[in-house]
Amino acid sequence: MSEHAEAARDTRAPNTKDRLISAAREIMVERNAVEFSLQDVAARSGLNSALVKYHFGNKDGLLLAILERDAELSLKQVERLVARDMPAIDKLRAHMSGIIDTYFRKPYMNRLVHMLIHERGDEVSAQVSRFFVEPLAGFQRQILEQGVKSGEFKQVDPGFFYHAVGSACDALFRWHPEARRIWGVATINDAQRRRYADFVVDLVLNGVVKRD
Amino acid sequence: MSEHAEAARDTRAPNTKDRLISAAREIMVERNAVEFSLQDVAARSGLNSALVKYHFGNKDGLLLAILERDAELSLKQVERLVARDMPAIDKLRAHMSGIIDTYFRKPYMNRLVHMLIHERGDEVSAQVSRFFVEPLAGFQRQILEQGVKSGEFKQVDPGFFYHAVGSACDALFRWHPEARRIWGVATINDAQRRRYADFVVDLVLNGVVKRD
Repeated sequence: MSEHAEAARDTRAPNTKDRLISAAREIMVERNAVEFSLQDVAARSGLNSALVKYHFGNKDGLLLAILERDAELSLKQVERLVARDMPAIDKLRAHMSGIIDTYFRKPYMNRLVHMLIHERGDEVSAQVSRFFVEPLAGFQRQILEQGVKSGEFKQVDPGFFYHAVGSACDALFRWHPEARRIWGVATINDAQRRRYADFVVDLVLNGVVKRD
Repeated sequence: MSEHAEAARDTRAPNTKDRLISAAREIMVERNAVEFSLQDVAARSGLNSALVKYHFGNKDGLLLAILERDAELSLKQVERLVARDMPAIDKLRAHMSGIIDTYFRKPYMNRLVHMLIHERGDEVSAQVSRFFVEPLAGFQRQILEQGVKSGEFKQVDPGFFYHAVGSACDALFRWHPEARRIWGVATINDAQRRRYADFVVDLVLNGVVKRD
């Protein structure tokens, strides 16, 4: 798409698809859950729930479309980061803070990834892998390789790294209110999010950085 | 219980409660899922499903009883570890390997914790916190404090540590077959489990250890 076409796209009124996606996103953020009915989306968007079927086939189609858009945004950021001329250690720091920031702003996103990968059969699972997991893991691998090449990082298994670090970044947002009470984290506000990001970044960077 | 009574208990034939618990555990390990029906348990144990209601109230009661027994075993190990006269760094290493080993042998355990804490209301959530999460976190806190006192560790937030490290330890076992295919981890065998444990232990220890 040319810049001109993109600008035109940004200023037009949101179309039906966009409105359905926005409504579903809002519901998931409010409920802090990925469970909702097509009637909920209809009520929130002021559109007929039959339009979901028309545009997305079914609810899973809508969920996939939401995740695909969110993934596209996140991947663009990571792609830009990987391309920058800066030390691998700074890239990794920015990348991990970015993951935690994304989970904070879109708390439904990781649940959506898990649900679509684990509970919707091999075809959906393969789709999510193709448009999100594989490219994201690929960018991460490039950062790790840059760091090994420059002598900043130890050699680590990129698959292990992807899963262990992704889980650690996500952990704060899976805390149950009861657990938060025990730990004195009543709500996850932005300050809390930043403290947790600092902790994970520090933990992981010290774990990866090479020492002579 | 006296040692004598405990020995007597160990050699007697398994009672109805034990048989129901064993049957449910076997089903969860086989299916790699925490979903099963009371009929499944009845068929596997050769006992009437009404006995579940008699002994545990309902399926949630059975799940709580299973987790409580598993938790008791794990907590005893950690308690012994904490009491030993050895450097905090070795305790933490053994503790994390122990977590990964437990998840490997009882892949249902972490899902059970999550399900009972997040999806069963505040009362069940508080129970699991009391008999498992709080004591486990308490032992971990003692190891961290020992390490800070001895100068081995940096000061880290024990709540952040508990969640980030717990999630990282668990990550390997949440990989979907599709993800394992991408990463070339077809099955999680014991060698794979050990390699992953080494990775997480190394990552975290380097992240926690103090450097001058």
